[in-house]
Amino acid sequence: MTIESLDDLFLHTLKDVLYAERKILKALPKMERKATDPKLRAAFSSHRDETEDQVMRLEEVFESIGKPARGAKCDAMVGLIEEAEGLMADIDAPETMDAALISLAQAVEHYEIARYGTLVAWARQLGMPKAAAILKETLDEEYGADKALSKLAESRLNAAAAAA
Amino acid sequence: MTIESLDDLFLHTLKDVLYAERKILKALPKMERKATDPKLRAAFSSHRDETEDQVMRLEEVFESIGKPARGAKCDAMVGLIEEAEGLMADIDAPETMDAALISLAQAVEHYEIARYGTLVAWARQLGMPKAAAILKETLDEEYGADKALSKLAESRLNAAAAAA
Repeated sequence: MTIESLDDLFLHTLKDVLYAERKILKALPKMERKATDPKLRAAFSSHRDETEDQVMRLEEVFESIGKPARGAKCDAMVGLIEEAEGLMADIDAPETMDAALISLAQAVEHYEIARYGTLVAWARQLGMPKAAAILKETLDEEYGADKALSKLAESRLNAAAAAA
Repeated sequence: MTIESLDDLFLHTLKDVLYAERKILKALPKMERKATDPKLRAAFSSHRDETEDQVMRLEEVFESIGKPARGAKCDAMVGLIEEAEGLMADIDAPETMDAALISLAQAVEHYEIARYGTLVAWARQLGMPKAAAILKETLDEEYGADKALSKLAESRLNAAAAAA
């Protein structure tokens, strides 16, 4: 695909994020199984529900611009998930695993924060306020998920890992 | 490497980030050459200088824990740079390229924000206030670089791309 205009770039990035979200949906159940702390497990479980909603919102945005909701390989998310798989395989201790899982999930969240931040700005620039509002809703959810993970880590789970 | 304790995980993540920073140092000159807007070129150039400082700071942290400053392959950054290379190869129009370069650089920044945020929290937890302070300095720089790119995009370059 040759990308000429900002419209093309917006569509390309939308496809990249759709692929990324679907990849995250597949990875989250494994992260949930690897987690020991009940609140962390619950956070992964509820983020899976959120991610399902986020995929539906992306489908709405594709519809609003009259394009089929097709993903395009996102090398960044492939790398992020590879990194997560590799690290999970290297850890046995449950407290260390919980701290690692939070850090891995936050790296994923931050990729999404960057991408949705860009998509919101481009949608506004391209005169698509409805698409911008839909994407902004997901952006706010990603910020929320990231903060909730920081809170879990800093209130309890990092200390548990350090004491283990 | 088997990762048992939070100390091991801290060291592993430090190596991951060192590898990532070195990879970014190699990628930035190409991004600078691909940029057309003089302020964007200048932003990439000054971020290269910042990244050199960030590598030196990481070396200081390794020294403070008595470990050699060795990188460990960071699959996430490999993926992020692959994504950047792929997208740069698909774009010719200079205004679209500038908008794309900003988005790619922000994805990289956000990876670093996630990683340094985690490292600062772990360093504090592990009773290493000096390492935490050094890492926090870089974290603040990454936030600053991300904000400067948003400002460039939203004040001028997204509009230029939409009008091209």
